[in-house]
Amino acid sequence: MLPKGKIRASIVGITGYTGLEQLRLLLVHPDVEIAYLTSRQHDDVAIGEIFPHLSHLDLRVSNTDHNVVGAESDVVFLGLPHKTAQDVVADLHGKVKVIDLSADYRLDDVAVYEKYYQEHKHPALLKEVIYGAPEIHRDAIKDAMSVANHGCFALLSQLMLLPFAGDIDHVDIMAITGSSGSGRSASEGTHHPVRNHNLKSYNINAHRHIPEITRTAKITEDQLNFVPTSGPFTRGIFATAFVKTGAAPKDIYEPHPFVRVMDNVAMANVVGSNYCDLSFTKTDGGYIVQGALDNLVKGAAGCAVQNMNLMFGLDETAGLSCLSPVYP
Amino acid sequence: MLPKGKIRASIVGITGYTGLEQLRLLLVHPDVEIAYLTSRQHDDVAIGEIFPHLSHLDLRVSNTDHNVVGAESDVVFLGLPHKTAQDVVADLHGKVKVIDLSADYRLDDVAVYEKYYQEHKHPALLKEVIYGAPEIHRDAIKDAMSVANHGCFALLSQLMLLPFAGDIDHVDIMAITGSSGSGRSASEGTHHPVRNHNLKSYNINAHRHIPEITRTAKITEDQLNFVPTSGPFTRGIFATAFVKTGAAPKDIYEPHPFVRVMDNVAMANVVGSNYCDLSFTKTDGGYIVQGALDNLVKGAAGCAVQNMNLMFGLDETAGLSCLSPVYP
Amino acid sequence: MLPKGKIRASIVGITGYTGLEQLRLLLVHPDVEIAYLTSRQHDDVAIGEIFPHLSHLDLRVSNTDHNVVGAESDVVFLGLPHKTAQDVVADLHGKVKVIDLSADYRLDDVAVYEKYYQEHKHPALLKEVIYGAPEIHRDAIKDAMSVANHGCFALLSQLMLLPFAGDIDHVDIMAITGSSGSGRSASEGTHHPVRNHNLKSYNINAHRHIPEITRTAKITEDQLNFVPTSGPFTRGIFATAFVKTGAAPKDIYEPHPFVRVMDNVAMANVVGSNYCDLSFTKTDGGYIVQGALDNLVKGAAGCAVQNMNLMFGLDETAGLSCLSPVYP
Amino acid sequence: MLPKGKIRASIVGITGYTGLEQLRLLLVHPDVEIAYLTSRQHDDVAIGEIFPHLSHLDLRVSNTDHNVVGAESDVVFLGLPHKTAQDVVADLHGKVKVIDLSADYRLDDVAVYEKYYQEHKHPALLKEVIYGAPEIHRDAIKDAMSVANHGCFALLSQLMLLPFAGDIDHVDIMAITGSSGSGRSASEGTHHPVRNHNLKSYNINAHRHIPEITRTAKITEDQLNFVPTSGPFTRGIFATAFVKTGAAPKDIYEPHPFVRVMDNVAMANVVGSNYCDLSFTKTDGGYIVQGALDNLVKGAAGCAVQNMNLMFGLDETAGLSCLSPVYP
Repeated sequence: MLPKGKIRASIVGITGYTGLEQLRLLLVHPDVEIAYLTSRQHDDVAIGEIFPHLSHLDLRVSNTDHNVVGAESDVVFLGLPHKTAQDVVADLHGKVKVIDLSADYRLDDVAVYEKYYQEHKHPALLKEVIYGAPEIHRDAIKDAMSVANHGCFALLSQLMLLPFAGDIDHVDIMAITGSSGSGRSASEGTHHPVRNHNLKSYNINAHRHIPEITRTAKITEDQLNFVPTSGPFTRGIFATAFVKTGAAPKDIYEPHPFVRVMDNVAMANVVGSNYCDLSFTKTDGGYIVQGALDNLVKGAAGCAVQNMNLMFGLDETAGLSCLSPVYP
Repeated sequence: MLPKGKIRASIVGITGYTGLEQLRLLLVHPDVEIAYLTSRQHDDVAIGEIFPHLSHLDLRVSNTDHNVVGAESDVVFLGLPHKTAQDVVADLHGKVKVIDLSADYRLDDVAVYEKYYQEHKHPALLKEVIYGAPEIHRDAIKDAMSVANHGCFALLSQLMLLPFAGDIDHVDIMAITGSSGSGRSASEGTHHPVRNHNLKSYNINAHRHIPEITRTAKITEDQLNFVPTSGPFTRGIFATAFVKTGAAPKDIYEPHPFVRVMDNVAMANVVGSNYCDLSFTKTDGGYIVQGALDNLVKGAAGCAVQNMNLMFGLDETAGLSCLSPVYP
Repeated sequence: MLPKGKIRASIVGITGYTGLEQLRLLLVHPDVEIAYLTSRQHDDVAIGEIFPHLSHLDLRVSNTDHNVVGAESDVVFLGLPHKTAQDVVADLHGKVKVIDLSADYRLDDVAVYEKYYQEHKHPALLKEVIYGAPEIHRDAIKDAMSVANHGCFALLSQLMLLPFAGDIDHVDIMAITGSSGSGRSASEGTHHPVRNHNLKSYNINAHRHIPEITRTAKITEDQLNFVPTSGPFTRGIFATAFVKTGAAPKDIYEPHPFVRVMDNVAMANVVGSNYCDLSFTKTDGGYIVQGALDNLVKGAAGCAVQNMNLMFGLDETAGLSCLSPVYP
Repeated sequence: MLPKGKIRASIVGITGYTGLEQLRLLLVHPDVEIAYLTSRQHDDVAIGEIFPHLSHLDLRVSNTDHNVVGAESDVVFLGLPHKTAQDVVADLHGKVKVIDLSADYRLDDVAVYEKYYQEHKHPALLKEVIYGAPEIHRDAIKDAMSVANHGCFALLSQLMLLPFAGDIDHVDIMAITGSSGSGRSASEGTHHPVRNHNLKSYNINAHRHIPEITRTAKITEDQLNFVPTSGPFTRGIFATAFVKTGAAPKDIYEPHPFVRVMDNVAMANVVGSNYCDLSFTKTDGGYIVQGALDNLVKGAAGCAVQNMNLMFGLDETAGLSCLSPVYP
């Protein structure tokens, strides 16, 4: 399963923040070499010309067709916009290991997908692509040809609720994300003069990550309030869940190296790393659960490396556990 | 009731952020002149020597005894540390109008006070000092000799819950405050390298502002979860309440000029001003209520001016409504 | 010269940050009432619908023609984009007092203007519109019909160099601005994820504010290096000038209420206010001069109020000196 | 020279930001294992109890005597306060490789040291301990038993001026540092409410890093103005030098893997990495040189790893070049 030499990894869609973070992490991995970095806007350009912070790298960005990339890689990471990844996964599935960081294959029920997103062109594939949350589907990921990475809000919320799955009467979640979650394109919501000292919620009870959360927590949408909020910082998500339940949280995270159960969660303790910190505080009628992760690492590219490790039979922590939080 | 000339206002305890903000606001008020600014550490020093940002002012800081200050003022604002204000209010009560920004007289039940704080040396006075939330006790404030200003978290939470008072089954509040809420002394929690990109909760279900909230909302402590959180910004509080109720919010804020009911609350919309913004979103089983205010203005010194206006029979908005939010 | 009632002030181009700040300041001024707020994109819309932070105001935005505005106002502030203001000033000049916050009339030499900007449609008017730096041209401003406000970098640099004007051998300036200086439109340079922790210079020795600086300092462009830099904060400019001179700084700022000569300059000491702080440190061969101001207040709308006060024979500090820095 | 197994590395003084960053970087290094982490305040405590962000690590902090540490290590990094390191270096010198991150052995002239610091207890050792700037003293570092790491401001300034060394008539430097440069103890200067939006210079022409700069640039103190400034961000230094010279910059950085000569320097391009970016802009009479580095990485612990690599005959980039800037 593991290639003889290093794993040839490619990133299709390198120019977004997810693609860039994928590259940052793969460069640390001792068992990986970069095959292709692709973008539709650039062909055969040194990466440092597009991203000066990477000008020390001897790597080029091309607009190579993804089928060619797939044929010459052991694993392909997709950093494409939502909807664009639908066809690419369909083209590559079964031919090369694929890890899709878009939202296109996160849901396995086409009706739910089409309620929250748009029409899906390959509905049959939804059930074949495995949901890439290693703390939930580790064994299935090991055998998967294609993996669909979770939403960043969604993964944190799921890890917070999983110890109560099946026992939740109701849950209210308030989750705050850094501006890097909005991607690399400037927009009103990431305009620095205001974002710099603002807090503002959006898509309350209408966010696309909701069906990922309810599926894992085994609740209906009626049992959840979800308040996504934008915060004045670059990296990180910090979430608070008020869980109404008669049950105690199951002690499930001992075998999972990147989940740390703490007395208190502080977002600065995880930034830059693949760790997700959780705390559970007993209350009348349930628990207050808090959690934090770096949206670009554990919430996206780091978890993708974790998935890659599982898919290739490597230690789950390879190339990740050496990266401590960048503190302060 | 209103003096013939300008209202002679003094600030006892000018060196904290609350005292400084009190001065900033009083300087805008057309009906006020500054009598005394006092501090125990400084005597007869130009304020610009202590605070260079105020070096244009021709005002001095002295350590004048508070009884002398009271005798030569129409109103005294107390920017003293908690516990220190107990005796000063007792000395001045009935002799001059007093607005106490400390926590010492916020609660009227001595047992509750002593549960959350320490022994109270003047328990009889607790019921005489009026709680200074103008949207709740406007008429009592008009007649008050002494007013105890609310906690900053507490006022925001009360304004969020007041439209449901008496009808709340349960409420969970997540509230995030800027670093100015920690005062002017440097501490680990306000150390910039970490605070700059951190979110962290503290005193969950044990914060001293809780009894102010439950009293107004007409709930028991068991019906409330309160999660105070420190955020990476200087000014502002942003809170989200998940209210479980069968009732709709009462439409009570029309006569209150500093409460704005909005579709969406954004913290940047209130910073620097005396406005408190609120939104009410219907959910299954209740409402998601969000609110924001500037902790130093509406949460402290601005509301103190509002109280002063009421106590002197001025328009409630005098010296305040001309101050728009400092945006961006 | 002063109207009998309040001064009827209008803002043509309310939707930019400069226009918004102009409104914020005019609302504090005791002698001013708002006549028109105009924008080409909005007609007869409550300002709170466009800017929720102003939803307490009973003011409307219209697309009224600027000639109508001029006829029904005592003073018109122009918050228009550069180049757009050329014709508007020409239309209004001599009919109503005009304060132009764009760059269109800052330079009096058409050749210099066209070198740094583009063709000027009303070159004859360049010498009639007075340059609005009250510390430099106070008397001319008193008699002016139209005033052209300075650039924000330019005013700070001029106030730093004016005490040496005529005696400067060479000067190097490094000036850092907050993101509000880039205006209200989102762009790559104000994208929060990067701006939040970045410092980056741009237009080194090619910035359009240079000719304003050299004119006042009485130097040639060869005698100046000017390094404009963007910083990770919302408001403020902080500049350091290395002045090579045999002269000591002339003591000229005593009669100027908004310039404070300090031992040390800290940007946080001026934010939100109309003050400009300066310090002068002797070195071998000259002085290190540091300065700070709020780019939207003293650097733009606050200085415009100062100019208005002079043009109407009011105290120069009316409506401005009551506004202390918003600290912290 | 290289041990058979991994290099046993210890950090004496783990609890400061420098020690913590040293650990973060050593954990990525493929040829290093941690021997001791020491602190005077803690004995045999899991590091996660002191620093929750490191609670995943199976490492303990002890107050082991530094002589014991030295005897059981191949290299000892000193993260001690200035002055404290004097004796420790003297005790360990020649017995184990030592990399001292304090200021105690940065200067080789005892008179200069005592002018800027205090009495030195081991003046003879000043000339034996090699100054740890690999771009300047690479060969000497390879043979060194003990290395004294540079100041963070000092290294950046030296790398900016080195291409002109010997040819500089005069240079003015304005350098801005993040708050992590102030260390882990809270202080007035790092109090978040103000630091969050402040810029302020300190120790102008009196900073302790000056003699390191003048020595390398081959100038006298009279030829330099140095303006250290604190900025509102956590990590990074951004500096601008106005160099008066008749010479062009020598092209010396090609063989140095961690210096990148760019068209434009942006601080966000280096944060989290060991890169130092430089730009050179020709002016009348000289050059404007800009530079940026991460004060905790290239400015301290990263350069210490670079030195360790040289001292052990490893590739200079081992364990460092895999760490790309953490962008955004």
